[in-house]
Amino acid sequence: MAMAKVDKNKKGKSKDKPEKKVKPAKPAGKAPLKVSPLAPASFPDLPVIAGVRYAAGEAGVRYANRTDVMLVEIAAGSAVAGVFTRSATRSAAVLDCQAKLAALGPAPKKGFGIVVNSGNANTFTGQRGASDVALISDAAAKALKIPAAHVFTCSTGVIGEPLPAEKITDILPVLADGLDAGKSAIAARAIMTTDTFPKGATTEVMIGATPVRIAGFAKGSGMIAPDMATMLGYVFTDAAITQDALQAMLSVATRHSFNAVTVDSDTSTSDAVLVAATGKAGNAPITSRRGAAARAFAGAFEAVLKDLALQIVRDGEGATKLVEVCVTGAKSARDATRVARSIANSPLVKTAIAGQDPNWGRIVMAVGKSGALADRDLLTIRFGEHLVAEKGWRAESYSEEAVAAYMKGQELLIAVDLGLGRGRDTVWTCDLTHAYIDINADYRS
Amino acid sequence: MAMAKVDKNKKGKSKDKPEKKVKPAKPAGKAPLKVSPLAPASFPDLPVIAGVRYAAGEAGVRYANRTDVMLVEIAAGSAVAGVFTRSATRSAAVLDCQAKLAALGPAPKKGFGIVVNSGNANTFTGQRGASDVALISDAAAKALKIPAAHVFTCSTGVIGEPLPAEKITDILPVLADGLDAGKSAIAARAIMTTDTFPKGATTEVMIGATPVRIAGFAKGSGMIAPDMATMLGYVFTDAAITQDALQAMLSVATRHSFNAVTVDSDTSTSDAVLVAATGKAGNAPITSRRGAAARAFAGAFEAVLKDLALQIVRDGEGATKLVEVCVTGAKSARDATRVARSIANSPLVKTAIAGQDPNWGRIVMAVGKSGALADRDLLTIRFGEHLVAEKGWRAESYSEEAVAAYMKGQELLIAVDLGLGRGRDTVWTCDLTHAYIDINADYRS
Repeated sequence: MAMAKVDKNKKGKSKDKPEKKVKPAKPAGKAPLKVSPLAPASFPDLPVIAGVRYAAGEAGVRYANRTDVMLVEIAAGSAVAGVFTRSATRSAAVLDCQAKLAALGPAPKKGFGIVVNSGNANTFTGQRGASDVALISDAAAKALKIPAAHVFTCSTGVIGEPLPAEKITDILPVLADGLDAGKSAIAARAIMTTDTFPKGATTEVMIGATPVRIAGFAKGSGMIAPDMATMLGYVFTDAAITQDALQAMLSVATRHSFNAVTVDSDTSTSDAVLVAATGKAGNAPITSRRGAAARAFAGAFEAVLKDLALQIVRDGEGATKLVEVCVTGAKSARDATRVARSIANSPLVKTAIAGQDPNWGRIVMAVGKSGALADRDLLTIRFGEHLVAEKGWRAESYSEEAVAAYMKGQELLIAVDLGLGRGRDTVWTCDLTHAYIDINADYRS
Repeated sequence: MAMAKVDKNKKGKSKDKPEKKVKPAKPAGKAPLKVSPLAPASFPDLPVIAGVRYAAGEAGVRYANRTDVMLVEIAAGSAVAGVFTRSATRSAAVLDCQAKLAALGPAPKKGFGIVVNSGNANTFTGQRGASDVALISDAAAKALKIPAAHVFTCSTGVIGEPLPAEKITDILPVLADGLDAGKSAIAARAIMTTDTFPKGATTEVMIGATPVRIAGFAKGSGMIAPDMATMLGYVFTDAAITQDALQAMLSVATRHSFNAVTVDSDTSTSDAVLVAATGKAGNAPITSRRGAAARAFAGAFEAVLKDLALQIVRDGEGATKLVEVCVTGAKSARDATRVARSIANSPLVKTAIAGQDPNWGRIVMAVGKSGALADRDLLTIRFGEHLVAEKGWRAESYSEEAVAAYMKGQELLIAVDLGLGRGRDTVWTCDLTHAYIDINADYRS
């Protein structure tokens, strides 16, 4: 399957020191969550991105004995961009980030800060939610000596509980003192909720004759517990690129990465991806999405985002299989998306995958219910290389034994061709297992 | 919660004899499915509907040692109506039923027949699917001495396997000989797949001075296994009503009954509801949806459909709770439906209910992701009588203890008011438990 080729284990550029192990959140009285069987072997050595420094600490927002606040400082002269959940009940922090990004000029002069806490989503907390965001922004602005309008905050965790903002503002000066360009791995752990592993990705790309680095980390596995734990992503690059070009590239890349994964079809109230480009690499500035340099950067950038997005599926609640759903031949791109999501979100498809059952009838069902144009006699279904169904019926070459053996793999491809047009889309998902129920049926209590 | 008040246990009118017990289908080597904890105490005594006779037998389509084919004969002069799945991959039988209904005149003279088999859905079986439907229709037409164009067939069970039509056509003459107006309960059992109980409902209503009876039965629990097991419903009445009026009433009533329930958001390829009105009660014929008599009949008719639909949710795979999701105050009726379905289909909401956790944050999430207009500060959420959230935050009167106690009940109400307009809709669903995974993860093998 076409996974992003991103250099996750490149050695030598990290300044990360041996660090205290941060455990994922767990329900009181329950066994800690086991690391997903789909987890990468290790967290990648993220390179230093000149102009970006990180810190993390224990504020005790909700979890004990682990870090739960991260602070990132981004040098003056950087460009920033963001994409956010479209939920109608999105969090106070998301609303604030959106307003601040919209108010930025095309070339902001001052530096930026990012503050993220885990354990509390500051969502559905009325007017107080916005006041708490302002408190944290002001404190971070003071600690980093930047305008409060340049501080972006994100909160992830339980919904409807007041955020103990003072616990966060209290430790921000200490975090500011400890900022370090090599502490990205520590930061990646502080934003985890029930993630079973921290998620990082990096790559390097030549812009003309100048090497440019991209490094990022993310948390989440769809809507994993507690309650509203969500997808957050932070990606940094030393490339020189304008504010507008960076935002345009992020919006496009998100569509084929973070917006192309689904664990359980539930959309969070706090999803946010923030990107900063410091320009310290010294390349000729990229000013649009056009041209060879822009295309080279966009490709590398999307690969990092896709890598992070797939790691989120790999940490999907209870996941034992990573599944790529590839739809081609749809009447339109929109129809392709409909069919891909209908398959990827179907509980019956996902339980069949968990049971390693080549139950292609459920794919037929999911195509049928999607609302997209489909013609039974033109539909082709493949599981990996195995032709399963075509011309309105099971393929003549179909071997239940061979396909059942294929289903035992950890990474699966379900390919559907509708035979009607040129619309195509790909979505990644995981299976639906007992562990999903365990994690979600009784989390808060 | 507003359940249909239908007389399910009225004694005295049934001619059902003690009968052989029919077990639900079960995967080979697995324990039989336990009867749902939400099942009614007993199958109702369905009254005789003059002009309708039933029979059932063992054809061995897929299951051993249980009935799997039902035959219904409907007297000449009856009106018939049907509603069907809108799946783009619907079964050969559904396509055939739709074509036959469309071709009927406004007052068909001859009688009708219905043949239903369980164990094989005759779906995605290419051109052979249509030939098998024709074989069965012809055999039933011969046995009942009616035109083949008046025979409706339905198939439910595994998808993509050729239907052994001869096994069905072979026993049709025997079934025709055994037709009996009192055998509705036997028929209701023959159409079960993994249903854990047969579903029946009946009521009586006065049309002018004439008592009219309505009786029906159904199978399914959303998309329960094996594979494509689906929702099928058969409702009979001795009312005199025209073909057009019956179809119009069925289409409206379906919206608030069978189309208002969801177990797992997966839409089947075989859903069908067929209704026949024999006119033998002798009431002044109902010719439209207008007028007191029509309204009285429509109300009673919808109550029977709703009762059957709720029994399907009560038999939802692994269900331990029946949940009514009631949305009011939406900007439009369509928005209300979107919000209600978003809540009722959310895996996170359904697992929280399974865990008896008053996790109202997940309701906020489901409202937010629905795509409907919503305003945090106008949203009101109630669990039963308990006000949970309002004015953008948890209600001041909220008591976690009281609401947690409420969540232990077997029948729950989640009420959401969006505070924006007059759109409203109600949907019924069940919780998502380990048993759902058990039933679906490894069914076919």
